[in-house]
Amino acid sequence: MTLHRLEPLLNPASIAVVGASGNAARIGGMPLAHLTKFGYRGAIYPINPKYEEVFGLRCWPDLEALPAAPDLVVLALAAAEVTPMLKRCQARGVRAVIVYAAGFAEAGDAGAALQAELEAFVATTDMVVAGPNAMGFANLNTQAHTNFASVFNTAPMQQGPGRVSLLTQSGNVCAAVYAIARRLGVDFSHFINTGNEACVDFAQYLEYLAQDDATDLGIGYIEELRDGPRFMEAAAEFVRRDKLLILYKAGETEKGSEAVRSHTSALAGDQQIYQAAFRQLNIIQSHDFAQMAQLAHLAGYRHRSAGKRVAIITISGALGAILADKFIGQGLDVPTLPQPLQDQLHAGIPDYGMVSNPVDVTGNVVNDPGFVRTAMEALAVSDAIDAIVVYAPGYMLDRMADDLCAVAEKHPRLIVAIDTGAAKTRDQLRAGGVPVFEDIGVAVSALSPFLLWQERRKHNPWLQVRSQPAPARATLAGRADEHTTKRYLAEFGVQPVDEAVARTADEAAAVAERLGFPVVLKVLSADIAHKTEAGGVRLRLGNAKEVRKAFDEVMASARAYAPTAQIDGALLQKMEAGQVELILGATRDPVFGMTLTVGLGGVLTELYKDVSHRVLPVDEAMARDMLGELKAFPLLTGYRGRPLGDVEAACRAIAGFSRAVLALQEQADEVEVNPLLVKEQGQGVRALDALVLAS
Amino acid sequence: MTLHRLEPLLNPASIAVVGASGNAARIGGMPLAHLTKFGYRGAIYPINPKYEEVFGLRCWPDLEALPAAPDLVVLALAAAEVTPMLKRCQARGVRAVIVYAAGFAEAGDAGAALQAELEAFVATTDMVVAGPNAMGFANLNTQAHTNFASVFNTAPMQQGPGRVSLLTQSGNVCAAVYAIARRLGVDFSHFINTGNEACVDFAQYLEYLAQDDATDLGIGYIEELRDGPRFMEAAAEFVRRDKLLILYKAGETEKGSEAVRSHTSALAGDQQIYQAAFRQLNIIQSHDFAQMAQLAHLAGYRHRSAGKRVAIITISGALGAILADKFIGQGLDVPTLPQPLQDQLHAGIPDYGMVSNPVDVTGNVVNDPGFVRTAMEALAVSDAIDAIVVYAPGYMLDRMADDLCAVAEKHPRLIVAIDTGAAKTRDQLRAGGVPVFEDIGVAVSALSPFLLWQERRKHNPWLQVRSQPAPARATLAGRADEHTTKRYLAEFGVQPVDEAVARTADEAAAVAERLGFPVVLKVLSADIAHKTEAGGVRLRLGNAKEVRKAFDEVMASARAYAPTAQIDGALLQKMEAGQVELILGATRDPVFGMTLTVGLGGVLTELYKDVSHRVLPVDEAMARDMLGELKAFPLLTGYRGRPLGDVEAACRAIAGFSRAVLALQEQADEVEVNPLLVKEQGQGVRALDALVLAS
Repeated sequence: MTLHRLEPLLNPASIAVVGASGNAARIGGMPLAHLTKFGYRGAIYPINPKYEEVFGLRCWPDLEALPAAPDLVVLALAAAEVTPMLKRCQARGVRAVIVYAAGFAEAGDAGAALQAELEAFVATTDMVVAGPNAMGFANLNTQAHTNFASVFNTAPMQQGPGRVSLLTQSGNVCAAVYAIARRLGVDFSHFINTGNEACVDFAQYLEYLAQDDATDLGIGYIEELRDGPRFMEAAAEFVRRDKLLILYKAGETEKGSEAVRSHTSALAGDQQIYQAAFRQLNIIQSHDFAQMAQLAHLAGYRHRSAGKRVAIITISGALGAILADKFIGQGLDVPTLPQPLQDQLHAGIPDYGMVSNPVDVTGNVVNDPGFVRTAMEALAVSDAIDAIVVYAPGYMLDRMADDLCAVAEKHPRLIVAIDTGAAKTRDQLRAGGVPVFEDIGVAVSALSPFLLWQERRKHNPWLQVRSQPAPARATLAGRADEHTTKRYLAEFGVQPVDEAVARTADEAAAVAERLGFPVVLKVLSADIAHKTEAGGVRLRLGNAKEVRKAFDEVMASARAYAPTAQIDGALLQKMEAGQVELILGATRDPVFGMTLTVGLGGVLTELYKDVSHRVLPVDEAMARDMLGELKAFPLLTGYRGRPLGDVEAACRAIAGFSRAVLALQEQADEVEVNPLLVKEQGQGVRALDALVLAS
Repeated sequence: MTLHRLEPLLNPASIAVVGASGNAARIGGMPLAHLTKFGYRGAIYPINPKYEEVFGLRCWPDLEALPAAPDLVVLALAAAEVTPMLKRCQARGVRAVIVYAAGFAEAGDAGAALQAELEAFVATTDMVVAGPNAMGFANLNTQAHTNFASVFNTAPMQQGPGRVSLLTQSGNVCAAVYAIARRLGVDFSHFINTGNEACVDFAQYLEYLAQDDATDLGIGYIEELRDGPRFMEAAAEFVRRDKLLILYKAGETEKGSEAVRSHTSALAGDQQIYQAAFRQLNIIQSHDFAQMAQLAHLAGYRHRSAGKRVAIITISGALGAILADKFIGQGLDVPTLPQPLQDQLHAGIPDYGMVSNPVDVTGNVVNDPGFVRTAMEALAVSDAIDAIVVYAPGYMLDRMADDLCAVAEKHPRLIVAIDTGAAKTRDQLRAGGVPVFEDIGVAVSALSPFLLWQERRKHNPWLQVRSQPAPARATLAGRADEHTTKRYLAEFGVQPVDEAVARTADEAAAVAERLGFPVVLKVLSADIAHKTEAGGVRLRLGNAKEVRKAFDEVMASARAYAPTAQIDGALLQKMEAGQVELILGATRDPVFGMTLTVGLGGVLTELYKDVSHRVLPVDEAMARDMLGELKAFPLLTGYRGRPLGDVEAACRAIAGFSRAVLALQEQADEVEVNPLLVKEQGQGVRALDALVLAS
């Protein structure tokens, strides 16, 4: 097996620091201080002609004087000195370099020029260059510290190996999350921050972590991705290897995006698309550093069986109600327990307790320890639930701890404890397979996404559709007008409304007779995108005379509106009625490529932002999920006595639309069906209007 | 000044425990253990004929043997023994009693009967009786412990007096919040949990705390209020005295409500109305125990000036972006700083920093301590912001601490620090007037509601309208049909559509001519609520002939639909067009009384739950807030080139509707205007339909 090309960067066998200092507070001194203090076992080469020795290590005058080429060189130099030194690194046979210096792309035109020079040089080499403007890395399993992060001096020391890797687009965020997670006892494998990503971007580090045997779990922070598709592929590899990925995406508000843009040079992608992409890859999207840390802790128990149906066991009706509210609010289920299980619980619970779920065993139950064991055993094997959450104040939890551990040892089901008191058995429980949370809010905010991840972990519909062959390249047969676009889409299963083209008023009348009245008449021109504005649409035409008149008026209006447009006649369509009008829109996201938006038509939907997004491809099952995400979905499922809509046909049309869009490849930047009329169940859908905008 | 009637319960000068035990683990022993351990200075009377002495205190054989009547008696007795003992308490001249026993209203019919007996007896006395099914109280300023809460043994001991009172409808929640808040160093005055509220309900305790000189801040937990109006009055007193109230309301989901109902006996009120009531009273609604505790900590700095415009100072662009996202997402403003202030900051910040807000002073700034002081001074006096949030990792915060404290001492503006590292100066900062948070998420979740509370604290529109005289009682002039209802509402300024009643087809035609075509014709009957279902509505009638025909058809349909209904003819209305159709609905909430809902008409609004609620009365300013809360509000303010709607007229109509509803007093349980047509600016509104349902 060949080593990954980032191996010398992230797992170096020898490290040189150019610009070495004997002062641990300086950026040329801190990595050396860390390497010696934390016991890195590879060769360490401080380089600085001013010193003979730093931190008890021989200091070398220059790179060329070293006895061997180091795997990795850390450059603690000013920006202007960087590229010349990179040239010397290449000459010396160095495989990887980390550049600390700021003053590149993030610092105006002069800096951008420096970075362009750096990139151009590195492109001619085989070296891997991280940064610039990076805080450096740490491999906590080998103690290869190539960073100037003071957090390693202040956060609690890691004692053993770790399996959690941290990957951020900000050194300060890397340090902040590390500090919080270390306080919770999370053990790390990699500490990575990407800096300006001149040569190695976020997605490439993610690729490394996906294949890294020391990484089970990735925690990341993203400002803007430079390569969305590569990111998707790396994240997909996480899914395939059953690793968990937790990401924080910054720039959720305009002000936040502004602040991000002012110190990165990446394009601003759409937050909604990031969210959709994360969801498609079963990435847990976090909005809180502490939550990320708690999730990392919880992920240590990911091999226990779990899912979204939770049983809540408390000694207080109030606390049970609070937990049920919170879990349900976060998308989990708190199912009523089956009657036989309730009966079994009832045997040991006083009448003023509760047995349905949440279960209130009452404070008395701890006086009957045999019952706690019996009850937990019964819950651990019930197929009505997937996970068990026990909330009891410290001293009661202490009395239950042996039983909880015994049940956890015997059964693989996830059991979680919450203790807002001060249980003495927390460590015993954690070691015995029962994670313990010290706060309800914290427990819910970690458990909810974790259990949903567990639920979705078994099957990823997007990876499945993506593994199928991509549709063959196709082209529109003719000019990209409404009629041609609909005929193209029809080949992929998006059924158009009954329609035909007429070149004259008489032809229009004849076509209308054939379609059946009433009809719609629209100007047909690939050069007129806004037909209504052009006076180019007439609705509800009831007879041949009205059609003829409409034809003449529409042609006149369109010519007046767009004198240079090529007008190819009129399009006549049957008036159709249905349940709901959908919009299907495909647009090219600057980060992720072609994406799909599904929503209800109309001004209110826009105000209520009731849309669902996905990165393409989308199949029928995913289309069903998208429709289900719409708050207005009940309009298709019999809301208040309405007839059912043809949801299946809508899903087929959406999946067909996805294939049609992908088959166009680079020929279209935007494809829209607006509206797609969804008729009653069994009556299908009709594309009433459609549009392709070329790139 | 007379003492509040709950004074002997919550601030007793002497305490007896009936059912005393020498075992600190038993409910008859724990209050005595606490009283002696924590140094209560009043008289303590253990009562149990079995013992001579418990916890070093003389134990008395019975209540009658005591040398003096105690202020407060704690009953550690079984349910059946309670009322007989209450009778002896009364005979002995006891002023207040706490009942621990479960087995009352929460425990089936037998328990309910016991509670009814207890209530009936207490009603004949002057005694104040707390519980039953309560964990008891603690007055932390006098150490009057009348509880069996083990949390006082496990949570960090309070050293000095406290000004925060805890009031919950669950003993376990009381203990859980106390434990979390004590770990944050919050000092308490009262620890109160209400139990079954047989004789003293939540609102009455709240009244006590409102007037209690030892309480600046109330933290509460509510399952269901028994007396909404009394609660509103007590909470209003908090506002008047400039005290802060933070409440957690359980039962947000159906499952949560079920769990609450199964162990309380109160009516389930509407969660939306609770939320509206809290908002009207500037109560901070919390959904998290830890957040409540953090808010209590932060409220210790409530005398510093603050509001919702925040300046963010960081040493990292990423962390600035994250904070800006979060604050804006929570409703705060992060305004761009005025240019002169930016220029001033620019003098000390490297080019790769940011000066607009968030401000990124960069890591270099700590090398220039004079600049930190100058920059903070400038921010502390700028009138463009209300509060300053400084985020810096521990060691950098340490270097800034002196400057931050110096500025905080000189200027009243709130300065808050966030440190995800391990600053050594946290205590110095806190003592110097700068609260410190240890996590970004925690900081935002406490600061956001606190700063919004500060913003709203200056002026409460609801208290103002409530302080005006209530409208005089009024009645409908006639049967409560559509026309009468609209005439009634018109007296309060809710303008109806032009309309008139016709008794015959000819009269209908004549009325229509007068109104101007097209017209609407509706059956007029107080007995037919669903006119459309009854075939009782005809729209867009264009001439006299159509009107005559419609009259006859509508009369026939209505008679067939409701043969026993009294039909008073037909109502003819001018067809009106407008910008938006609103629904105004007043309903009687079981907890809070008459409440108002404003929303857009139509099925989508229902699906999107786009409505705003208030407890009445509502004035024009509040009406404007309600409209502003609707996501569809832009439809009235020129969205996508639409004409402006007459928002002012809509507000006048809503305020008039409020007065009209209140004037009906108990005569109506439900009043609705649906729709209220809002026309273009300057053209007013028209009530197109209206309905009163009597109680």
